[in-house]
Amino acid sequence: MHSLSSLFAPRGIIVVGASSSPEKLGAVMAQSLSTYPAPVELVNSRGENGMHTTIADAAAAIPGGPDLAVLCVPASATAQALRDSAASGATAALVCAGGFAEAGGPGVEFALQVEAAVRETGIRLLGPNTSGFFVPHRNLRASFVPGVAELEPGSVAVVAASGGVNHVLAFHLQRSGAGVSLAAGIGAGTDITAPDVLDYLMTDDQTKAVALHLETVSDGPALIDAVSRLSAVKPVVALVVGRNDVSEFAQSHTGALATSWRTTRSVLKQAGAVIVEDENQLIAAVTALAGRRLSPMPDPGVGLITGQAGPGLLIADALHTAGVTLPRLSQSSQDTIGGLLPPLTFQANPVDTGRPGPGYEKIVAAVAQDPAIDVVAVYGLTEPVADLPLAVANSGAARTMPFVIGVDGPDGDLERTRKSAQQHELPLITGPTSLAHGISALVNDSRGQFQRAEAPEGSLEWPDVHGPWDENRSKELLNAFGIATPDRRVCTTRTAAQQALIDLGGPVAVKLLDAAVLHKTEIGGVHLGIKSAEDMDQALEQLEVAGAREYLVEAMAPAGVDLVVGVRRDPVFGPIVVLGLGGTAAEVFADIAIRSAPLAKRAAEGMPAELLARELLYGFRSGPMLDASALAELLVKLGDALVSNQAIAEIEINPLRLTHSGLVALDAVVINVEEDI
Amino acid sequence: MHSLSSLFAPRGIIVVGASSSPEKLGAVMAQSLSTYPAPVELVNSRGENGMHTTIADAAAAIPGGPDLAVLCVPASATAQALRDSAASGATAALVCAGGFAEAGGPGVEFALQVEAAVRETGIRLLGPNTSGFFVPHRNLRASFVPGVAELEPGSVAVVAASGGVNHVLAFHLQRSGAGVSLAAGIGAGTDITAPDVLDYLMTDDQTKAVALHLETVSDGPALIDAVSRLSAVKPVVALVVGRNDVSEFAQSHTGALATSWRTTRSVLKQAGAVIVEDENQLIAAVTALAGRRLSPMPDPGVGLITGQAGPGLLIADALHTAGVTLPRLSQSSQDTIGGLLPPLTFQANPVDTGRPGPGYEKIVAAVAQDPAIDVVAVYGLTEPVADLPLAVANSGAARTMPFVIGVDGPDGDLERTRKSAQQHELPLITGPTSLAHGISALVNDSRGQFQRAEAPEGSLEWPDVHGPWDENRSKELLNAFGIATPDRRVCTTRTAAQQALIDLGGPVAVKLLDAAVLHKTEIGGVHLGIKSAEDMDQALEQLEVAGAREYLVEAMAPAGVDLVVGVRRDPVFGPIVVLGLGGTAAEVFADIAIRSAPLAKRAAEGMPAELLARELLYGFRSGPMLDASALAELLVKLGDALVSNQAIAEIEINPLRLTHSGLVALDAVVINVEEDI
Repeated sequence: MHSLSSLFAPRGIIVVGASSSPEKLGAVMAQSLSTYPAPVELVNSRGENGMHTTIADAAAAIPGGPDLAVLCVPASATAQALRDSAASGATAALVCAGGFAEAGGPGVEFALQVEAAVRETGIRLLGPNTSGFFVPHRNLRASFVPGVAELEPGSVAVVAASGGVNHVLAFHLQRSGAGVSLAAGIGAGTDITAPDVLDYLMTDDQTKAVALHLETVSDGPALIDAVSRLSAVKPVVALVVGRNDVSEFAQSHTGALATSWRTTRSVLKQAGAVIVEDENQLIAAVTALAGRRLSPMPDPGVGLITGQAGPGLLIADALHTAGVTLPRLSQSSQDTIGGLLPPLTFQANPVDTGRPGPGYEKIVAAVAQDPAIDVVAVYGLTEPVADLPLAVANSGAARTMPFVIGVDGPDGDLERTRKSAQQHELPLITGPTSLAHGISALVNDSRGQFQRAEAPEGSLEWPDVHGPWDENRSKELLNAFGIATPDRRVCTTRTAAQQALIDLGGPVAVKLLDAAVLHKTEIGGVHLGIKSAEDMDQALEQLEVAGAREYLVEAMAPAGVDLVVGVRRDPVFGPIVVLGLGGTAAEVFADIAIRSAPLAKRAAEGMPAELLARELLYGFRSGPMLDASALAELLVKLGDALVSNQAIAEIEINPLRLTHSGLVALDAVVINVEEDI
Repeated sequence: MHSLSSLFAPRGIIVVGASSSPEKLGAVMAQSLSTYPAPVELVNSRGENGMHTTIADAAAAIPGGPDLAVLCVPASATAQALRDSAASGATAALVCAGGFAEAGGPGVEFALQVEAAVRETGIRLLGPNTSGFFVPHRNLRASFVPGVAELEPGSVAVVAASGGVNHVLAFHLQRSGAGVSLAAGIGAGTDITAPDVLDYLMTDDQTKAVALHLETVSDGPALIDAVSRLSAVKPVVALVVGRNDVSEFAQSHTGALATSWRTTRSVLKQAGAVIVEDENQLIAAVTALAGRRLSPMPDPGVGLITGQAGPGLLIADALHTAGVTLPRLSQSSQDTIGGLLPPLTFQANPVDTGRPGPGYEKIVAAVAQDPAIDVVAVYGLTEPVADLPLAVANSGAARTMPFVIGVDGPDGDLERTRKSAQQHELPLITGPTSLAHGISALVNDSRGQFQRAEAPEGSLEWPDVHGPWDENRSKELLNAFGIATPDRRVCTTRTAAQQALIDLGGPVAVKLLDAAVLHKTEIGGVHLGIKSAEDMDQALEQLEVAGAREYLVEAMAPAGVDLVVGVRRDPVFGPIVVLGLGGTAAEVFADIAIRSAPLAKRAAEGMPAELLARELLYGFRSGPMLDASALAELLVKLGDALVSNQAIAEIEINPLRLTHSGLVALDAVVINVEEDI
């Protein structure tokens, strides 16, 4: 049995700090738990209303003992209550109170005491500083918010950093029709964190899709691992907070430093999660994904059938913005549809049906059967005579292909349509743009599963990777990976440098070679386009002034498009590979793609497509064409360099030039971790 | 009386093509109009169910005659029905049928006939190809969609390009609690277009805010003018479709070519509209704006009070993303709030209250009274004991300052809170991100009204602006505007060019000077960094090979940041001023700001702030600082050049270099309209 079963499916519960004053949280919690169909015993130290006065007494009243202790006591009393609960047989606890580390002062000490109690007793703790959790299909609701009594069983699990957001998402899911299977607010995350709950959800049959809300990440690799394993069996949609610097406010809330928003999103996507921008998209995404999931493929095609062209345009525009493909239907499909619709309407995809007529089900079937279509979106204004979910079900197509239905209309119609959708097990979404978000989530889930292949084991023979590294040695390491660099000579004398100019036979670059100098250009340590012996003399003189004792003479690379690639150790997620374009503008636009290492080649191949300026890489104005496979191999090897060598802190190639004859590393820096410099 | 009063407040209606078969559109329309409290007479050529057989008979049955004719007849019969209706006294008509220009074939001819009928009778026509309009507070519902019977009177007007979207927005507004005052789908827009309806709304007292949906724009200046005048008296929020190329589908729908999405949004914003990304944002925006509007100011400060930190973070993050400012509260406000809240919570703004306690109303008042705060957002999960709208009302602060309240909770709680909000005339929004969108709309409306100052009359003495224009003459025109250019000499001989090098006293640029050559660089017509007589000779030789007979010798400008500015004639909106950054990356990122001319200096001053790479303009890495006022003057003058001179088609300055000593136009091209070249 999973260690969180005693939290989410306890055979008995004790509520410590229950109260008979209805305004107190201990009373609200006891009330909330009162519907749970297993023994719930209340503890009140003053014995109010005949409650037990000790934890031991309450536990003794439960045959087989309590699995779960719900603590409604102040921070100062929490550690002792945890120990007493564990001693009485509880193996899980919920602590909702705040006033621990995030509050500072004595709270820091209380937090340490709670950590010690958890460590020494082995009790699994959710909290502190959370408004609880709920499992509606078990009638288990451990929450201070009375409205949770109205939550009905559904198919989406919520794992939220914040108790408040946990409730917000649950209420929205109830309204969307998808409903909640299990919802937990992590709070301070002293013991149980998101990866633990994700792991529990692997085998939770009620859960068809998972909504993950993250504010900060304490254990990056565990999160990546949990998302990767869970998303292989059911879809995971992640909303990461903190696009902007809201850290002062966030810290007061969580007591933790903000994790990089961009890195967190990138590595979760790589692990197979669908990434969304806000909670409205999150709801649409899990509502769609709680239905039938697409199989993994690189670029699923969407068919769109709309009853009205105006909303259809909103949907199509939003799908394009999300990078989703609406393939043109085959001529044969169009012929079939053309025989079923009046000639006025657009039929190539989107298919604009007007109000659903007698041939509607056949149109749905024709779109679904088109070889380019992998998922179908159906939209229409509600009408008394039309039942879209029924029509889709009658088409027979939904037995083999994912559908999402979108409708708009007055409340009564929506309610009726929602019931029909539930009956036919079809996801239903209100609003054109939300429908597009739901469809995009299905597509991105499929793409994510396709890219989420296993990373290969590192297989390189590694040379000595201890420092110091000058540019030449850094480039030798790249050469060992198979990364091209310009022809070069290390020279210690002027004569040797002049000879190198002759040997390399063309304009050369002359650089100061010194492992201690990281930024050569800033101190005049780089001279480009040296053609003559006279130029060379001049350059060497200036390099001597800059303190050079060794020179690197290098063939000039042809013109091209400059990239920047690097791999470094992220404090949360470990080795991280970054790809960006060179130049100031690209830097200002912060146009980069990120992956965690080790990374699969497919994951690396997806990186250039994430750059906003990607068109520069594909023959822009007769420029060179990127070989995405060659770049991916390079990125995989860079990642492997840090995974396989704990001594290396960072490698940066800046620029990595894309030329008509391939990728060339023009400059490279290797930095060791402190103890290995 | 406004000419659209006979459409939106008719004293009598005839329905032409009414039917007694309930499945026919003519029957649905007659049913929909049957609740209107003024005479509605039905026309059926076969006299079904005792209906009138002619338009004249039906009109005669209405004392004073019909104002409005609603036509449910095929495209082929529409023009005659329009003429008959006009002859019988109707001054407005609604035509819902499709089958005109958008359908091609005989539809093109039917469309011409309808245009002629409108022109010759002066009848005002809504449609064809629209599902109608409705004015719930008059019980007037002219729509084929039965659900409109459930729409209750509200305060938001909808002007939608598409009849379908008109209905979608109306149903969403009903659900949001803001409701609809008037909603019209423009359809083909043969006569009545969006500007006409916007104009009507100027004096429609029921309408507090306007939701504008646009697919294509037929008359740009009229739209700008209507939005500008309307937004001065009530807020206008615009959703423009077509971020992506959905033109094939759109054209089948509207029969019109797509208008530039980016240009349309830019000029509507300049005219005072709030621009949104999708219909969900549109609903949140008009719901917030239907309450109290902010006065015009450059950067209103938002105060955020939240009951839960997690949703508060979502709101704060979304507000930052939208570029909205949450100023830190003054120490005095924080002291007041600190005395009302436990010490754990964040109080500087956002103010994290936890569940509303006894001091809640005083906290609300303290935030509202802070001098940095111009609008307050209040958010909380619903609770049986807490009524947020009541608490805000009791604080007294909402009498002088705009508030928006956001809540989440189960349906019953939301319904109760919505009623309280309506009672206290406070806008209410569900969901953290939607609340942020509502607040952003209030802020952007205020900023838009601040920037929407009158453009000055052009006051320059214009020289002869007929072509041809070589670079020197183009630069003389810029000099006449007061725009700096490098020192230069026009030379026709080598000797003169050598003398110019000496006179200009430093490295110079030498360029081919020929009005017939637009792209000098491509043909080797530009040589930079000429320092010596020898260099000059070499350059001149190559220019001669390139065909030069005149040379422009110019002082080299100092290094800096290159901008591109231009003004051209947009086919829809007329003179358009564009600002962007130079270089390939900026081009690929399509990072530009657009305004229509004539433009006010304030509108021009806002342009650099719209560039994503704006930090490059403000001392990036010790680079030069932009003088936004100087750039604005330049942009205003460029706009004026096209407004005042019909002969000029386009002026482009590329690059306009930002240097430590100001802006310098390094190259300039003036192009005349065809007949003036």
